[in-house]
Amino acid sequence: MHKQLMISALIEHAGKYHGEAEVVSVETTGGLMRSNWGNVEHRSRKLASALSKLGIKQGDCCATIAWNNVRHLETYFGVSGGGMICHTINPRLFPEQLIYIINHAEDQVLFLDKTFLPIAAKLGEHLKTVKAFVLMGPRDAESAAMIDGLLFYEELLETGDDDFVWPEFDENTPSSLCYTSGTTGNPKGVLYTHRTTVLHSISSNQPDGLAISARDSVLPVVPMFHVNAWGVPYIAAAVGCKLVLPGPGMDGESLAKLIDSEEVTMAMGVPTIWLGLLGALEAMGSKAPSLKRTVVGGSALPPSMIAEFRDKYGVELIHAWGMSETSPLGTMNNLLQKHMSLSDTEQALVRLGQGRPPWGVELRVVDDSGDVLPNDGEAQGDLQIRGYWVVDTYFKAEQSALTPDGWFDTGDVATLDADGYMIIRDRSKDIIKSGGEWISTVELENIAVAHPGVANAATIAARHEKWDERPLLIVVKAEGEEPSEADLLAFYGGKIAGWQVMLWCLLTSYRWGPLARC
Amino acid sequence: MHKQLMISALIEHAGKYHGEAEVVSVETTGGLMRSNWGNVEHRSRKLASALSKLGIKQGDCCATIAWNNVRHLETYFGVSGGGMICHTINPRLFPEQLIYIINHAEDQVLFLDKTFLPIAAKLGEHLKTVKAFVLMGPRDAESAAMIDGLLFYEELLETGDDDFVWPEFDENTPSSLCYTSGTTGNPKGVLYTHRTTVLHSISSNQPDGLAISARDSVLPVVPMFHVNAWGVPYIAAAVGCKLVLPGPGMDGESLAKLIDSEEVTMAMGVPTIWLGLLGALEAMGSKAPSLKRTVVGGSALPPSMIAEFRDKYGVELIHAWGMSETSPLGTMNNLLQKHMSLSDTEQALVRLGQGRPPWGVELRVVDDSGDVLPNDGEAQGDLQIRGYWVVDTYFKAEQSALTPDGWFDTGDVATLDADGYMIIRDRSKDIIKSGGEWISTVELENIAVAHPGVANAATIAARHEKWDERPLLIVVKAEGEEPSEADLLAFYGGKIAGWQVMLWCLLTSYRWGPLARC
Repeated sequence: MHKQLMISALIEHAGKYHGEAEVVSVETTGGLMRSNWGNVEHRSRKLASALSKLGIKQGDCCATIAWNNVRHLETYFGVSGGGMICHTINPRLFPEQLIYIINHAEDQVLFLDKTFLPIAAKLGEHLKTVKAFVLMGPRDAESAAMIDGLLFYEELLETGDDDFVWPEFDENTPSSLCYTSGTTGNPKGVLYTHRTTVLHSISSNQPDGLAISARDSVLPVVPMFHVNAWGVPYIAAAVGCKLVLPGPGMDGESLAKLIDSEEVTMAMGVPTIWLGLLGALEAMGSKAPSLKRTVVGGSALPPSMIAEFRDKYGVELIHAWGMSETSPLGTMNNLLQKHMSLSDTEQALVRLGQGRPPWGVELRVVDDSGDVLPNDGEAQGDLQIRGYWVVDTYFKAEQSALTPDGWFDTGDVATLDADGYMIIRDRSKDIIKSGGEWISTVELENIAVAHPGVANAATIAARHEKWDERPLLIVVKAEGEEPSEADLLAFYGGKIAGWQVMLWCLLTSYRWGPLARC
Repeated sequence: MHKQLMISALIEHAGKYHGEAEVVSVETTGGLMRSNWGNVEHRSRKLASALSKLGIKQGDCCATIAWNNVRHLETYFGVSGGGMICHTINPRLFPEQLIYIINHAEDQVLFLDKTFLPIAAKLGEHLKTVKAFVLMGPRDAESAAMIDGLLFYEELLETGDDDFVWPEFDENTPSSLCYTSGTTGNPKGVLYTHRTTVLHSISSNQPDGLAISARDSVLPVVPMFHVNAWGVPYIAAAVGCKLVLPGPGMDGESLAKLIDSEEVTMAMGVPTIWLGLLGALEAMGSKAPSLKRTVVGGSALPPSMIAEFRDKYGVELIHAWGMSETSPLGTMNNLLQKHMSLSDTEQALVRLGQGRPPWGVELRVVDDSGDVLPNDGEAQGDLQIRGYWVVDTYFKAEQSALTPDGWFDTGDVATLDADGYMIIRDRSKDIIKSGGEWISTVELENIAVAHPGVANAATIAARHEKWDERPLLIVVKAEGEEPSEADLLAFYGGKIAGWQVMLWCLLTSYRWGPLARC
């Protein structure tokens, strides 16, 4: 009964009890790689052994700059399972940020997908601690020429022992590391442990959570460098579902094809990804028949998206909220028994918000003086969270990240109701203060996205002489549509108070990438 | 991130985030008591406070002899949450066994349902440590007359503080205690901790496990004195489902009515309970329209029962296996993705066995010399288990309960296949050895129960001069049926080898109670 909660126990279970279940991955160099949990267990165990032979010690950081693919999955388990820390890096960071975090983490090894070799080659001399660069693939001459002494994953693996045994150690040992960027200052590292990861995995896979079963085929589009792809790789190992990893192909058309060919039942991603998928399905005339559920998080959900998934494709869109500091699951939106007698429209209204906390996290909203506000669905305040998988101190920070009474302040402004349903009203730093009154950027964006001429939208604050700030809406026009500014302004009529409507509207057909936060 | 895994955190979550979800309970004295999770949290917190004022200290045992009802539920959380040990006692034990376990546990308080007051009154002078007997109800004169100084639950509760705060302490602190009876020797206590209980709860409620959601209405017929009703009370608190507790009414007709009136979606119990329910549904002409799933464990499942639930009532019967020493979940039978293309008949065949281990437990089968046998679905051996919620030492025992290499020997004989599907072939002590060959009592019983004239059946070994042992079948005749011994013997034709068929058959219309183990 005193066994430690180990990440290696997840992959060991996968190898032992569902070794034949498939892990399919789109390769960085194109094509599909078909593996299974048995192979992933065996190869990640060899990787752990190989890293140890390379002189990497327990507690050392090994970084990845990679897409969602099977070798990235193996590093998750090989690095953490071997007692090292798996540091997943967002390739879209600025070079100075990459240098900062790699040096700050004191990364010893850098695992790279071919796409990111040029970035690493450029950073090379600034990286003070990296002893080995590893290309995540077999040897290839073109890559070898780019970085002196480059190692190749498949060759490295060969040096590992087949009979390596997963070590057991204290479950509070750090297992993985994600840096999160604020608007100011250096990125901050959030360090997860074996215990927080395992508790998060089993708690967030409850029937009212991700609810992944062994019969699912699961496509995490959310990047593996973004809060461990919401923990999906760990959950998938524990339950033995089929796992489908999209590699670099995160555009709508690639996803639509992958969903069909691999009979994906469930997918996870940010709203921008789903806008792309919906557009592609429409264009291709596909109905994505295997797809049953998508989980959306990372930024606010345009209400029209729930209806489009449900009515056109029979897909249940589940809204979730979390952040790097919360592993990430904070809330997930599923209905209670008392909602089952509501009409479809009323149910849809409940599901618009970010949902309720699962067992393991607690939420509260507080006012400016830190007093706790009532859970009445009305009182709006700073959202704070605590629980088994919530950060207490940033990596290498001296001060606690928590309030004096032990809660983490999320920076979101929210309401909570009596059943724990939470609605993010805004980021506290995004909210617009106009003439002393608050205007929600999220609300303005949601209305814009419901307009048929709009593919995506963002609201920012523009300085205004009289009102201090006024909202400025930036709109990406839908394919083949030409909405005018007047059209859009008129579309707000009756939906919000007149004084909240933005003064200006910027129309563009530039489509921002899936990884950018607007 | 260093918060301890506490049982109080489960009920605290219930009170905070689904306080209005119902807890309905059949009272010992008749009628329904309607409560909700908010009340249960408040009352269990007051109970913890009241016990502390009564002089009960953290680490002390408080025992219950009670049906499944709401006050019993409150003692689960109040006793364990307050740091004491909740010792649930099986009222069907012999008086000497009751005396032994109460003295062995050094129980300080004995919570009693009115049904069991006469038992307690008789044992009174033999109980060396019990300071307070508490009737689980309001004051009543008849009860007061039976035991000197009897306390009444509702009055005790009044002495507790409303603002009592759940204490936090080490998660490895013992939380509850169940004694299990072998065939020889004194009952042995299995001690659960806060950590094992919480880990078992969230791990056994995965989508391939119990899969209870907030939209379920759950009826645990499995007694709360039997391995904590398989952990259902804890899971129910965590997820906020409606909980329906049947009290003393465990006969088929009472259950059928309760399922209909409380719109039960899911129920748990042993095969005997479901035989009673199926009989009652048939007699009443009810279709139990709300019921979607039943979970069966505790003894082997007659194959015909799966078909009857599925074909007549559209209910999925899920086979599970576990024991007191394993908290109890060891395996649960759900399908893998690769089974989805099988025919109904082929799927039903897979589901007959006891199923696969969830993440958190591991299984193996070993031969007589302790060598591990292959997971090939053929090799039959002693079933051993280890994991996060598996006992290592019995309560107050000096020796470990495990093998030298750390596994618990279950006493069952089983096979395991490559996907971890386990089939119990027999209890190692139940199996019949006839002329040097093994005969499975389970197999003989399963065939008998499939005969329309049979309500229930058990096989025992009868001493035989020539063959050493031969099987003897004891049959309970179905209502209004009169199968003959010849009928039954003929029914075995072509189903098993001739030499395995029992020589004698005993027919009875006595119905053994739901609590007896045959």
